[in-house]
Amino acid sequence: MSGPPQSAGCLYGVGLGPGDPELVTVKATKLLGSVPVVASFAKKGAIGRAQAIAERWVSKSCRRLPLIYPLTTELHFCDPAYIAQLRGFYQDAEERITSCLLAGEDVALICEGDPFFYGSFIHLFVRLRDRFRIEIIPGVTGMSGCWSAARTPIAWGDDVLSILPGTLGHAQLVRHLGTSEAAVILKIGANLGKIRAAVAEAGRLSTALYVEYGTSEAQTIMPLADKGDGHAPYFSSILIPGHGRHA
Amino acid sequence: MSGPPQSAGCLYGVGLGPGDPELVTVKATKLLGSVPVVASFAKKGAIGRAQAIAERWVSKSCRRLPLIYPLTTELHFCDPAYIAQLRGFYQDAEERITSCLLAGEDVALICEGDPFFYGSFIHLFVRLRDRFRIEIIPGVTGMSGCWSAARTPIAWGDDVLSILPGTLGHAQLVRHLGTSEAAVILKIGANLGKIRAAVAEAGRLSTALYVEYGTSEAQTIMPLADKGDGHAPYFSSILIPGHGRHA
Repeated sequence: MSGPPQSAGCLYGVGLGPGDPELVTVKATKLLGSVPVVASFAKKGAIGRAQAIAERWVSKSCRRLPLIYPLTTELHFCDPAYIAQLRGFYQDAEERITSCLLAGEDVALICEGDPFFYGSFIHLFVRLRDRFRIEIIPGVTGMSGCWSAARTPIAWGDDVLSILPGTLGHAQLVRHLGTSEAAVILKIGANLGKIRAAVAEAGRLSTALYVEYGTSEAQTIMPLADKGDGHAPYFSSILIPGHGRHA
Repeated sequence: MSGPPQSAGCLYGVGLGPGDPELVTVKATKLLGSVPVVASFAKKGAIGRAQAIAERWVSKSCRRLPLIYPLTTELHFCDPAYIAQLRGFYQDAEERITSCLLAGEDVALICEGDPFFYGSFIHLFVRLRDRFRIEIIPGVTGMSGCWSAARTPIAWGDDVLSILPGTLGHAQLVRHLGTSEAAVILKIGANLGKIRAAVAEAGRLSTALYVEYGTSEAQTIMPLADKGDGHAPYFSSILIPGHGRHA
């Protein structure tokens, strides 16, 4: 670490849990009540989910630093235009956070779930870790919220649990489902049809659950087999429980 | 559900997070401050880790219900004597909790990490779920605490993350490590030597981290390659970070 000025602020990556504001940790609530700048990722014109969870915990005097994602849903993630837009977004976010830190302000970047578990925060962490103090406050993951809300133990005993992005290809999904007792599939959205076909081919459709907005007021839980091919939020998830070693 | 008496208490499976008492959720602290009975798993003569985490949050007036594990470390988990001992233990725990619930008392069974993620709580959940109301309060997993403390993003982009019990055989460990960008290995203890050999054979030793008691005062973090073959706690973990999709 080349070393920030002694006077520089600290960046906090703050996990806020799956959606219920009471599932925020005590450590996160204390930080949010005192930190001068609260940054969050969000889509243009929408209140981000992290911001909605944090609302009751942030101090009235804090300054908000919204980091607005470019609108990229019409581009494939391998498209060079998508990659360039996203790089520009993270570059801009890095500069805005850097300004606060160099001015001596601590910044809390709030994140749904856990910051280091498939979080956008990771992109800023790798850009800033050699220049500033960074502290991570872990959070309850979205998937823990989902399997708790669904009353479904996910893994026990010697179960292998695989976390699979729904962006994987059909063959990869089938292969991983065939070698794991338990699985959680994330990043559903437009991948839903492909995922259900892979779960069925792997012989796991009868126990798979579909969960949307677990622990929040908008929570929906149903067998994956009953979920139509209509809209599924990107942040919904599919749970395939293990079977454990019974005593 | 055949239905408990209307007057029966509710069983709460309460996740307490990885070790730092401030990483308990607000929801869990509120429950612990008001519930009349707090049950916990522990070894004979020792204060369980869950109990140590919960201590500052439980009300002074609550009754403790310690559930003492049989001493089984000298038996292999496939040994019929081990299985019989463990079954007797869960049977006894079930009866003691049932007594409280039938007497109309709510019971919080406290758990390190998250109750449905490789937790002993699952054994009681499956025994009691058809007879009593049960509510799950998810917690920050031990592994989230470990990767946050180690400042190591575990998975991003399209990384597959596999959670592997260290009790698996060498060949299974190598195979899963070969097909996953990221991995967390749990249940280390006496499996350490076997696990390190498998990690090395899979070509992942250069990035693997060994973490003991993440987020607690006794925390130790080091490269797995530097960890000798001496003592490793059963609840330590090994982290093999993914590489994500860079923007």
